[in-house]
Amino acid sequence: MALQFKDNGLIPVVIQDDDTDEVLTLAYMSEESLRRTLESGQVWFYSRSRQELWHKGATSGNFLNVRRIIVDCDDDALLIRVQPLGPACHTGERSCFHRTLEDQETAE
Amino acid sequence: MALQFKDNGLIPVVIQDDDTDEVLTLAYMSEESLRRTLESGQVWFYSRSRQELWHKGATSGNFLNVRRIIVDCDDDALLIRVQPLGPACHTGERSCFHRTLEDQETAE
Repeated sequence: MALQFKDNGLIPVVIQDDDTDEVLTLAYMSEESLRRTLESGQVWFYSRSRQELWHKGATSGNFLNVRRIIVDCDDDALLIRVQPLGPACHTGERSCFHRTLEDQETAE
Repeated sequence: MALQFKDNGLIPVVIQDDDTDEVLTLAYMSEESLRRTLESGQVWFYSRSRQELWHKGATSGNFLNVRRIIVDCDDDALLIRVQPLGPACHTGERSCFHRTLEDQETAE
């Protein structure tokens, strides 16, 4: 079966550090972002808020070099193992997943 | 900020094995699935295809015991670190992410 870009033409993508196994972020790809990712060897997402292709790291320099692309059993999600060239989160944290649910609730 | 259930009332959830760091699956939760997850200490999803609450493992016995729930920087994705009581994938594989993109394309 072909890859399913079924959320408005997008597929969700989990990014995992290939050296540390840390989950870095969850974002979305269009067919065109996947094409550019395969071509360049660096992760390209599709930004749902800005509605545009997004070369991850273009602003910060923190590009994600692709090591391996893995497809899930239903062909509707990707896992990409990467070598990150810097923090993956716009806050400067290594991972976008850096607060427990309790932390988040306490901060409200 | 409160958690964003913005995809038709759902939030995407990455499940990671707390002992091996393997990414096991990507699925979705409604507010009610998160409530039941917190209450029971086991993962409840919301099945988009069946449009119903889904106690992961109810059929197979392969429940996912919750170790830690982590929120992403935008409050619109969750990472749950679990102790899986068996294979997480309906195919019997440990993880739903068990084929590279090349494998998937070759099989087409």
